[in-house]
Amino acid sequence: MYELTVTALFSAAHRVVDSSGELEELHGHNWHVAATVAGDRTDQNGMVIDFAVLKERLSTVLDDFDHKNLSDLGEFRDKAPTSENIAQVIFMKLESLLDGCRLRSISVRETESSSATYTED
Amino acid sequence: MYELTVTALFSAAHRVVDSSGELEELHGHNWHVAATVAGDRTDQNGMVIDFAVLKERLSTVLDDFDHKNLSDLGEFRDKAPTSENIAQVIFMKLESLLDGCRLRSISVRETESSSATYTED
Amino acid sequence: MYELTVTALFSAAHRVVDSSGELEELHGHNWHVAATVAGDRTDQNGMVIDFAVLKERLSTVLDDFDHKNLSDLGEFRDKAPTSENIAQVIFMKLESLLDGCRLRSISVRETESSSATYTED
Amino acid sequence: MYELTVTALFSAAHRVVDSSGELEELHGHNWHVAATVAGDRTDQNGMVIDFAVLKERLSTVLDDFDHKNLSDLGEFRDKAPTSENIAQVIFMKLESLLDGCRLRSISVRETESSSATYTED
Amino acid sequence: MYELTVTALFSAAHRVVDSSGELEELHGHNWHVAATVAGDRTDQNGMVIDFAVLKERLSTVLDDFDHKNLSDLGEFRDKAPTSENIAQVIFMKLESLLDGCRLRSISVRETESSSATYTED
Amino acid sequence: MYELTVTALFSAAHRVVDSSGELEELHGHNWHVAATVAGDRTDQNGMVIDFAVLKERLSTVLDDFDHKNLSDLGEFRDKAPTSENIAQVIFMKLESLLDGCRLRSISVRETESSSATYTED
Repeated sequence: MYELTVTALFSAAHRVVDSSGELEELHGHNWHVAATVAGDRTDQNGMVIDFAVLKERLSTVLDDFDHKNLSDLGEFRDKAPTSENIAQVIFMKLESLLDGCRLRSISVRETESSSATYTED
Repeated sequence: MYELTVTALFSAAHRVVDSSGELEELHGHNWHVAATVAGDRTDQNGMVIDFAVLKERLSTVLDDFDHKNLSDLGEFRDKAPTSENIAQVIFMKLESLLDGCRLRSISVRETESSSATYTED
Repeated sequence: MYELTVTALFSAAHRVVDSSGELEELHGHNWHVAATVAGDRTDQNGMVIDFAVLKERLSTVLDDFDHKNLSDLGEFRDKAPTSENIAQVIFMKLESLLDGCRLRSISVRETESSSATYTED
Repeated sequence: MYELTVTALFSAAHRVVDSSGELEELHGHNWHVAATVAGDRTDQNGMVIDFAVLKERLSTVLDDFDHKNLSDLGEFRDKAPTSENIAQVIFMKLESLLDGCRLRSISVRETESSSATYTED
Repeated sequence: MYELTVTALFSAAHRVVDSSGELEELHGHNWHVAATVAGDRTDQNGMVIDFAVLKERLSTVLDDFDHKNLSDLGEFRDKAPTSENIAQVIFMKLESLLDGCRLRSISVRETESSSATYTED
Repeated sequence: MYELTVTALFSAAHRVVDSSGELEELHGHNWHVAATVAGDRTDQNGMVIDFAVLKERLSTVLDDFDHKNLSDLGEFRDKAPTSENIAQVIFMKLESLLDGCRLRSISVRETESSSATYTED
């Protein structure tokens, strides 16, 4: 079985409620996003999907978030823009753009020491 | 399903017997530790567990090892302080400090090119 | 001659005018900051300055920016919160907290591919 | 369960057909390779396999590719030297050199933002 | 004084004569390029040069090398495509595209452990 | 002018007196070492010095420290094995092994957030 991973980043603002129930001040991050797709075989060119195509699809999704305040976006009206929810929203959007391979996971790294991954397993 | 990973490091000394049966000289490493927890859903704040809380728990565990000679510690009296065993010991200690999410794995990176992961799968 | 560099990061929001004269939307970044100090000799312990002390001073400075909207802060009322100006402001603040070694430069990395350095050379 | 990962790199040239059916010009990459093995228990020294031994085996495999034009090698006569196929070929070669632990996956990172993983799961 | 650094990469093939006088086999690398410019002051927007503009100029230069065999290019007809010469050629080309700030250095990282920097100091 | 940098690492134990006058417990680190040499011109092969040769010389120096307790070594009998002193000792040793190019600096990174550089400027 083959898995392919491409990465990209977007820079955005957000504010969320932390575990003590307090609303953080507005701040921001560079979110590094890794998208992993799986395929059981390769095509005649030896690819599951061309890296360039997968990156282009991921960019299409991330362009909606880059240089934005996530807390103002419709996608996060009913759920907080935490890394968990950001990963889940990107998963849904990217999945709808893919054919010929299945989306395995979206990982969202908020800082070098904190990341969240969403899968449908 | 969601997985959250936080990372931290500790600096310690150790000496172990290598595959040729020889006891290495005392030396040391920066061990980079990645703790991954899993949860099926997020809470009302959109989190599986607050990154800050998970990092604090991991730090509590690693503080026992940081700036120590692992070969002198009680945890490694009966098992060598290899990356495999360090990962397993951290897993047991961190698991006892968590509630509301399950610990998935502990990865211990001894150098940039060598790491060991312990899971209970 | 010795130079010591310590690094830290803060996460904040900002908005600046780009080269086409357009005001960006509010967004954010993780700014990775590297502070470099220089000294001609080491003390009796073999140090120019203890890394832990230098990190603590840098943290004191960065705490004013972390989890904030830079565009709202007094420090950036009269100058845009670009990486250039952020580096210069951190330089002035950190320099006032150091004695026994001279501050050489502050580098501010806005993304993995973009950084600005301020020096008084 | 334990998993051990070691990494190494090789530098080579290749040319492949992209998704638009066009043959790229000859170029090259540094391919970063991660080999992951699994074991249910550790030996009396606390190891699944000595990192040094695993690295030596991986090096033996990669030496055939380093400073070569992959498109000229027999291994890639009948399949394109894509990251997918490179991962699969390394898997087969390394597996035949291992005993006492099972090879889990080979990941091949072509650039910092593109990688392919082959597993037999 | 301010220095700004932007980074980008290109993937190419090359072959050079090593220190023992032997011509290597054709192979390739990902060359990570860092361009550093200097300026004594910032403009009214707080910038020495917009990162986006500097990256675009650097990309214009690197596009000539990406997915090429450097040993076939006119730029390297009379000098070997070593990292030293690649850095010097990129310096000359990028310098001719910049105004309002001076180019300080071009660093070319051939592998994670090997890099060459060209400056006119 | 050209500068070449190669990197390598060694893993060792040490203990030093911190700024509060307290002797730390024995512990260890992976020290990442960067050696930078300078040359005004390249040879007929387009090199200041072959990366492979420079790496071999640096390895010769670091082999004396790898998998050792620095606090036990003769080199550090009269000076503490701090990053500052480690950099200075490596500088002296490597300089004596080089001809045809001048050693510019040795940087020693003790952790990802702490490094010391020694130069003779």
